[in-house]
Amino acid sequence: MAPRIHPFDSVKDYEIKLASKLIKDSYPADANCHFVQIERTDPPKKDMIKYLDAERQGLPLPNIPRVLYAYYWTNTLEFNKALVNVTVGHIITKVQLPKGVCGPLLPEDMEDWEEHCNNHPAVKAEIEKLQLPPGYQVRNDPWIYATDDPNEKRPLVQFFMYVLAGNGHSESNHYSLPLKFSPVFECFTKKFIRIDYLPGGYDEKITPTGPWQEVPAVEYHPDLNGENVMREVKPLLVNQPEGPSYTVQGSKIKWQGWEFRVSSSAREGFAIYDAWFKGRQVFYRVSLSEMTVPYGDPRAPYHRKQAFDLGDCGFGACGNSLSLGCDCLGTITYLDGMGIHANGDPFVVPNTICLHEQDNGLLYKHVNYRNGNAVLARKREFVVQTIATVANYEYIINFKFVTDGSLDIETRATGILSTMPIDENVKVPWGTIVGPNVMAAYHQHILSFRIDPAVDGHKNTVVYDDTLKLPRNKLNPYGIGFVTDRHFVEKAGSIDQSPFTNRTVKILNENVINPVSKGPVGYKVSLPAAQMILADDDSFNVKRAKFATEQMWVTKYRDHELFAAGEFTNQSQTDEGLGVWGSNGDLVRNEDLVVWATLGFTHIPRVEDFPVMPVETHTIHLAPFNFFDKNPALDLPQANNNFNKSVNHPIGSDAEPPCCSSKI
Amino acid sequence: MAPRIHPFDSVKDYEIKLASKLIKDSYPADANCHFVQIERTDPPKKDMIKYLDAERQGLPLPNIPRVLYAYYWTNTLEFNKALVNVTVGHIITKVQLPKGVCGPLLPEDMEDWEEHCNNHPAVKAEIEKLQLPPGYQVRNDPWIYATDDPNEKRPLVQFFMYVLAGNGHSESNHYSLPLKFSPVFECFTKKFIRIDYLPGGYDEKITPTGPWQEVPAVEYHPDLNGENVMREVKPLLVNQPEGPSYTVQGSKIKWQGWEFRVSSSAREGFAIYDAWFKGRQVFYRVSLSEMTVPYGDPRAPYHRKQAFDLGDCGFGACGNSLSLGCDCLGTITYLDGMGIHANGDPFVVPNTICLHEQDNGLLYKHVNYRNGNAVLARKREFVVQTIATVANYEYIINFKFVTDGSLDIETRATGILSTMPIDENVKVPWGTIVGPNVMAAYHQHILSFRIDPAVDGHKNTVVYDDTLKLPRNKLNPYGIGFVTDRHFVEKAGSIDQSPFTNRTVKILNENVINPVSKGPVGYKVSLPAAQMILADDDSFNVKRAKFATEQMWVTKYRDHELFAAGEFTNQSQTDEGLGVWGSNGDLVRNEDLVVWATLGFTHIPRVEDFPVMPVETHTIHLAPFNFFDKNPALDLPQANNNFNKSVNHPIGSDAEPPCCSSKI
Repeated sequence: MAPRIHPFDSVKDYEIKLASKLIKDSYPADANCHFVQIERTDPPKKDMIKYLDAERQGLPLPNIPRVLYAYYWTNTLEFNKALVNVTVGHIITKVQLPKGVCGPLLPEDMEDWEEHCNNHPAVKAEIEKLQLPPGYQVRNDPWIYATDDPNEKRPLVQFFMYVLAGNGHSESNHYSLPLKFSPVFECFTKKFIRIDYLPGGYDEKITPTGPWQEVPAVEYHPDLNGENVMREVKPLLVNQPEGPSYTVQGSKIKWQGWEFRVSSSAREGFAIYDAWFKGRQVFYRVSLSEMTVPYGDPRAPYHRKQAFDLGDCGFGACGNSLSLGCDCLGTITYLDGMGIHANGDPFVVPNTICLHEQDNGLLYKHVNYRNGNAVLARKREFVVQTIATVANYEYIINFKFVTDGSLDIETRATGILSTMPIDENVKVPWGTIVGPNVMAAYHQHILSFRIDPAVDGHKNTVVYDDTLKLPRNKLNPYGIGFVTDRHFVEKAGSIDQSPFTNRTVKILNENVINPVSKGPVGYKVSLPAAQMILADDDSFNVKRAKFATEQMWVTKYRDHELFAAGEFTNQSQTDEGLGVWGSNGDLVRNEDLVVWATLGFTHIPRVEDFPVMPVETHTIHLAPFNFFDKNPALDLPQANNNFNKSVNHPIGSDAEPPCCSSKI
Repeated sequence: MAPRIHPFDSVKDYEIKLASKLIKDSYPADANCHFVQIERTDPPKKDMIKYLDAERQGLPLPNIPRVLYAYYWTNTLEFNKALVNVTVGHIITKVQLPKGVCGPLLPEDMEDWEEHCNNHPAVKAEIEKLQLPPGYQVRNDPWIYATDDPNEKRPLVQFFMYVLAGNGHSESNHYSLPLKFSPVFECFTKKFIRIDYLPGGYDEKITPTGPWQEVPAVEYHPDLNGENVMREVKPLLVNQPEGPSYTVQGSKIKWQGWEFRVSSSAREGFAIYDAWFKGRQVFYRVSLSEMTVPYGDPRAPYHRKQAFDLGDCGFGACGNSLSLGCDCLGTITYLDGMGIHANGDPFVVPNTICLHEQDNGLLYKHVNYRNGNAVLARKREFVVQTIATVANYEYIINFKFVTDGSLDIETRATGILSTMPIDENVKVPWGTIVGPNVMAAYHQHILSFRIDPAVDGHKNTVVYDDTLKLPRNKLNPYGIGFVTDRHFVEKAGSIDQSPFTNRTVKILNENVINPVSKGPVGYKVSLPAAQMILADDDSFNVKRAKFATEQMWVTKYRDHELFAAGEFTNQSQTDEGLGVWGSNGDLVRNEDLVVWATLGFTHIPRVEDFPVMPVETHTIHLAPFNFFDKNPALDLPQANNNFNKSVNHPIGSDAEPPCCSSKI
């Protein structure tokens, strides 16, 4: 008998094993099923609403089967998707997808292809021409091929080639020494297609491979980076002597009035489900949905540099195993992720999500100036963190739940810039020279977060309020008045950011009136106004990532509409996500709706971003807006030092005595 | 003999005592000198450059006299300013300022006037009419009178009146129970001028004072707020067993490659001086310069609600004494501020600035996906924090120095909304009802931060770069290219924010070329695009706060041009700061220049912001931009748990066992 499992629990190893076995058994052995992703699907929302209601009321729970999807190749070049009911153990559907649809690539395949590429005679011949000095090798990074030809239906992979210095040290920064040729292979068949040559000057001109001109690598690893005098940093320890304030039971987390579930996902990293604060329903599901990273270097073949890190690879599939005392401090609970091998066997990605509490300064303070009496509470946060390594880059996703009912979704970009070779004395207007003969092209990181709200229930409404001057009139004789102007989003579509009118987007429930404000209850969604995708409207970059043209979208809820650029992004030619749903005419007011927030940043690399980049941080802020009848954090204990045990380090503790103390 | 003192050290008590004595001695006794602010002035920069050069080189230091300014009233209604050399002990200048110039008000005067107001027969008569039930009293907040009449030259103060419930509890939230009359007095003479009556309906109609209609107060104090079940929060302790990583000697701080001075200031709270990172000069001086808080309620007398919290009161003069384990956690060093009494006697404001380190997640990370090897460093910050209580509101200013050479200037607004009475069943489009019969008007917080850069020296240039699409052409056949477009600021003026072109402002030194990027070295200044002041151009609100019309200003450096709205803001009629310097035609390219960053937020109150407001946080980010030749934080030790001593809290530690462990 299967153990008790919640419909939102992460996929289990035995479920993956069962799904892949059922699929493999359904083909002749020589079909050679090659899996690239197996993951749980969400049950239909209408079933889950009943389930969750019963759960809250302590009633018997309806039976909801667990359903997995699997993407896999058969007979080498047929791409398939199956849905498998792993509760009863049968395949629901199995479809072969049209030629040209490529699913995500499997990390272990990429590593296999890396080796294949370097050992291919055509590539070896090219490497030969470099005449590398002793101690130098060639390393490659497989890259998503992307799209520039509507007739190209083969699944392809392109390799960026680098010199590995460091005398064989595995952590030498090959990104510092990019080479000027780039082999292209067919995926799975590993068939050699061609070698693209990379320009080194201002235009697209290329040159045949010749001897490599030796330049030093800019190294990041402590063994190699030449930093002989390390900075002295004294320990700063986070101790929680009584343990954490949260509890984790299965996927269910309770902390400071918040209740929700966390489920790992090969595609999204994780999703938050069924989030309530202080007994009020707030979100049905929140997750990262897609990310595209288009580069601005127009020269072939760089025009194809456009990654979709979720759809092309999988954020969870590229998830780090996080380490105690490294990725977060304090008292930490780790959740595992689940990966698969090409044969359909699961493996555990240990500690891919970490849960912990942190202090973030003051939450509120007021001092009565008449007597100095203060009330103040600290801002405690509960963090759900995951980190993915997508080849050169790292993305850190932090969902920070706050004691006042707000939720901050923070993205930190770090890791290593994707680099291009550049000739001596060349400058380009689309890139920064970050080391000897190495350039980092301007690019954009555009992330779509899917927010499926349930603000006091599932029927919600999106509005945006602008703040506008009042005209000067009898009521406003001094010309200082200003008011808000409300717009209702009636149909599926997008909302422009408008910081200069203080535009704020709110998710309201028009059926629930706040007894104090006398208006509908809601949650506010704030995100920084930012440049969206820069390519031409009729470029492939835009056609494939329509979602990246707008900062905020509203669609009607439909099961399985989860991914902003559509289900299959690898070598896609159009955005089959928000590119379709975002303009389908659906009525969304007082409906079950979804808000998609697009966080974007155009990254103009700094020299300081190399060889490893200090985090660039951007945040979406979700906060109650006339949802509660007062500050919901008044029940927090007041801060005091009996509790917080901080320590005074008076002036004069340091070596030299302070001068100038008063003589009065 | 005076003790050795640095020209940037905070004002000393004996200096204030000497200055006020010299001034008092220079008048007949019956002139009755009444001081409102005494503070240090900065020495001329040309002298300080020589001094700081000599200091760095270990050469004999030039003598630089300490000069204080004093604002004071004589013969009750004459306002004066004196400059006093307290090193040699003589008055440099002494001027009586024109009628209509009002200096800042002194907190202790305001408290005195509070009592005077409540005891005045006209006010008592009004209170009488309220027929308050037993246990209720009236409390008032003195308020800056602001400006609506160019002929009004008297220094005035206006009182907002409230019912104090709580049965005599001093911390009952009077802001919850605003009354409908507002007495106006002349400052210093305490002469009663009139009573303004406040509207309670949609328009400016007023009604005579009648019996107070009893409604419950929305209370914040734990004794009164009715929160009977407090949330259980487990301790989260920050321990630094080896002490902090910084040293403080006098005003000089050294931390992680940063070196700078911190000096308290009655007007600005504090200023940072002479900041260097890794042996390179970055800033000469950085501080909060001014803040204006205009309200959007057009009805008289609310049209006059426009505070200038620095110029009208003084951010340091309103500074909190911070407490261990409350305002920040860990190992803390406190710096004192200095206040004055009206008689010119100084007093210490203990612990008004706190210094501490904090951890802020990851600074950088990269994992070699081939073998899982990770490099990662934590983001340690050094925080200089001060908090001011300006009547109802609290402002938390955090300057966060980071180990990668960046500096984040963070503002958190908290405290209590300024409230207005509102009649039952009335709604207004310029305010939110936040409790029974109480409304919080929409308003703006607009803060000017003055950044006096010294990026590798004093001759700097400001540029802004937009990111623009490349036209589709032979070089860009796929329409995906984008480039940056640079604009130089040649003349004193302002720069619009432009988030949709990814505009970024940089302070460059055109005389120093980065050997890697081959362009000038610089620092980037980022701040959120935001709505600026909403009033009409010819309103007093705008005329008095021109600085608040633009998000970024550049001016040529001149000694004593420190305050964005000018030296005297209380009842001012024009902005004599950036309103003048921002358009004076000064050439600023490759000059000693100053950048003024205006952080603004239009605050549409939420019910959740009452009775005490969770922090609203906004940040200016300063970061090296092609200043170093690589990531300057590579010399940080790698994070590990031997150092950080974090603790695992595995699933299953909590009461119920987790379900669903695998059976495979």
